[in-house]
Amino acid sequence: MDSFAANRPMIVANAEGHHLIDTDGRRYLDAVSSLWVTTLGHRVPELDDAIVQQLAKGAHSTMLGNGNQVVIELSEALAKVVPVDRPHFLYASDGASAVEQALKMAFQYWANVGEPAHSKFLAFRGAYHGDTIGALSVGDDGFGADIFNALRFDVLRAPAFDDPECFDRAIALVEQHAHQLAAVIIEPSVQAAAGMQLCDLDGLRRFGAACKANGVLLICDEIATGFGRTGELFASTTCGLEPDLLCLGKGLTGGYLPMSVTAASDRIFQAFIGPDLGTTTFYHGHSYGGNALAAAVALRHLELIEAWDVLANVRERSLEFEQLLHDRIDANPAVKEIRLRGLMGGIELAPPIPGLRWGRKVAAAATDRGVFLRPIGDTVILMPPLTLTSEEVHEIVHALSAAIDEVASD
Amino acid sequence: MDSFAANRPMIVANAEGHHLIDTDGRRYLDAVSSLWVTTLGHRVPELDDAIVQQLAKGAHSTMLGNGNQVVIELSEALAKVVPVDRPHFLYASDGASAVEQALKMAFQYWANVGEPAHSKFLAFRGAYHGDTIGALSVGDDGFGADIFNALRFDVLRAPAFDDPECFDRAIALVEQHAHQLAAVIIEPSVQAAAGMQLCDLDGLRRFGAACKANGVLLICDEIATGFGRTGELFASTTCGLEPDLLCLGKGLTGGYLPMSVTAASDRIFQAFIGPDLGTTTFYHGHSYGGNALAAAVALRHLELIEAWDVLANVRERSLEFEQLLHDRIDANPAVKEIRLRGLMGGIELAPPIPGLRWGRKVAAAATDRGVFLRPIGDTVILMPPLTLTSEEVHEIVHALSAAIDEVASD
Repeated sequence: MDSFAANRPMIVANAEGHHLIDTDGRRYLDAVSSLWVTTLGHRVPELDDAIVQQLAKGAHSTMLGNGNQVVIELSEALAKVVPVDRPHFLYASDGASAVEQALKMAFQYWANVGEPAHSKFLAFRGAYHGDTIGALSVGDDGFGADIFNALRFDVLRAPAFDDPECFDRAIALVEQHAHQLAAVIIEPSVQAAAGMQLCDLDGLRRFGAACKANGVLLICDEIATGFGRTGELFASTTCGLEPDLLCLGKGLTGGYLPMSVTAASDRIFQAFIGPDLGTTTFYHGHSYGGNALAAAVALRHLELIEAWDVLANVRERSLEFEQLLHDRIDANPAVKEIRLRGLMGGIELAPPIPGLRWGRKVAAAATDRGVFLRPIGDTVILMPPLTLTSEEVHEIVHALSAAIDEVASD
Repeated sequence: MDSFAANRPMIVANAEGHHLIDTDGRRYLDAVSSLWVTTLGHRVPELDDAIVQQLAKGAHSTMLGNGNQVVIELSEALAKVVPVDRPHFLYASDGASAVEQALKMAFQYWANVGEPAHSKFLAFRGAYHGDTIGALSVGDDGFGADIFNALRFDVLRAPAFDDPECFDRAIALVEQHAHQLAAVIIEPSVQAAAGMQLCDLDGLRRFGAACKANGVLLICDEIATGFGRTGELFASTTCGLEPDLLCLGKGLTGGYLPMSVTAASDRIFQAFIGPDLGTTTFYHGHSYGGNALAAAVALRHLELIEAWDVLANVRERSLEFEQLLHDRIDANPAVKEIRLRGLMGGIELAPPIPGLRWGRKVAAAATDRGVFLRPIGDTVILMPPLTLTSEEVHEIVHALSAAIDEVASD
């Protein structure tokens, strides 16, 4: 907080389409999608309308032992599109809670089927799965997670995506530890918080097959990649993965309202069938899990993704970005690497010495130019709305290029 | 899930005031406030309006390193009423996340001030603080938490509220372990999920003083008790507590939208001041923390609590409940104990033998009579909206009384 003001925070008063407007009336292109959540933009009339319509029915009723019509409709719509076998859904609000639900379901699954020795998780270096203690345990030690080591449980570790031996090592770990693994957890395709580290898709495909061959449960955390971000509705599909447990959040409501969900395959679901409040019961439920307003906007959002052919736009704009970043930024000696998959991108800078805070400075300089960007360390993140226009692709690259030049020549 | 249908779930289609309406058009008085979240009722025109007004400005923008006007306004309004010294706020969506934030802040506080030996938490038997692994660690072993022991961290345990020596033992533990405690976590006044176990207010007052005298950080989890539920805005005040960290959720948005918050005292806040992304930084932020729509409804809700003098209604209706439960239910041999504080109540049944599922059956029988109730084990929970009318108090007790008679005579 000491440097909050020095980092030039934007205080948002309102928003419009792809733009945020601050309390001084300045407009910014929201090129981080309000932290990777906004998909179709701000103040989308159809999404606003979904909320207003649901307000006339009721904002919320409890899902604990009961149901709500719009949440059932959303679940039916999601069931048709998620890459999970005969899925069942448990809703929460924070993404980390969806991860915690998946971890606990996987862990209890083995207790319920009488194989409690399956109690370890395998996770990846460079992974980020959320900030609550369970999610933090499977995440990597970075970003201050290791301060909490006394509270985190131990996990087995495969290398990070940027290690060329990542999946060979991960497959060896799966084969070696299958008898004691509760599950593997992975961000398919892109380790987002690691600065958009892209995985080797073929390696990940082989890894998924190894999990299946060894009977190891697979948890896919698609909180960042889900709902079109990589150019397919879910990145698991691109990598041929069929997770036993799938975690979704962020884009689920188009960036409007907090909602997350854990989709469990029928194999998982069946292991929890048993007497009411018995030993196989899964005791986990957040008060606002399955909030009706969030469900209404999520349902309409899913319809719009299809109706507007949003995925085609993601793929087209991604190609444009790739070309333009190559032409305008790649050769800049201040840039170390450009990583892009769909509309998830990271521009890793190459400061001559550590401690220059180039990431912060480039993001601030781009923001001064009307393009709101945010760094992770010295990687500037590109995470624009999925309905981005070609003109806006140019605007972002132009501002970013100028910002890098300004900071590097300083 | 096996018994989901047998437990007669209500599938809500819409809502109106204090009532839920199911897909068959049946109306139910929502006497559990949609799992303890609804305060003023459903479809409150003023709260609906707050959402519609905010939709015209934008549903969400990120609070990570940035700000949003309506969230600042909410924080300013909360700062005036929470029993925390010069409070600072970190928002999340699930209540469990607010607890995780408080636990992590307390833990890192001691690392930041150079006293990392303060690494243990003291919690109470009978406590419930949420379902994520950190929250589950400080919660009691019940409700299947012990299945996850291999993932939970160890805590010190004081007795439950229903143990007459609860606070004497808790004070002794504080004195004995002060040098290694990161913090104490407690639900002030009422252990809600334990079936509405009421604490000895004087004992809790002495306990709070002992924490202060021994320099032990106090975390108050008011997710269930906050926003008027016990007849004061916050139960901590009733018990003379001034927590270092306060967790709020549920009623914060009047039951409309998921939002939770951790309020930290200035003592806590100052320990995190330091260089940008340095060792004292608190790396914790949920994507939708500080959602603008939720903040708008929370802000309006706080204004309405005062404008409508909701607290006076809670106190009056609570007295009516007390009298009526005494007259109509207390002497019933099928009832073991009645516990009530404000509009949080539990009717503990006295089934002649275990396994009869009286709690489930009485709740279902009351629901058949148009009063939606939900049990925790064999305790039927009373958690009606705070704007309940005198007529509705009678309606609830009448249905509950008849439901108990029906089940007990079966």
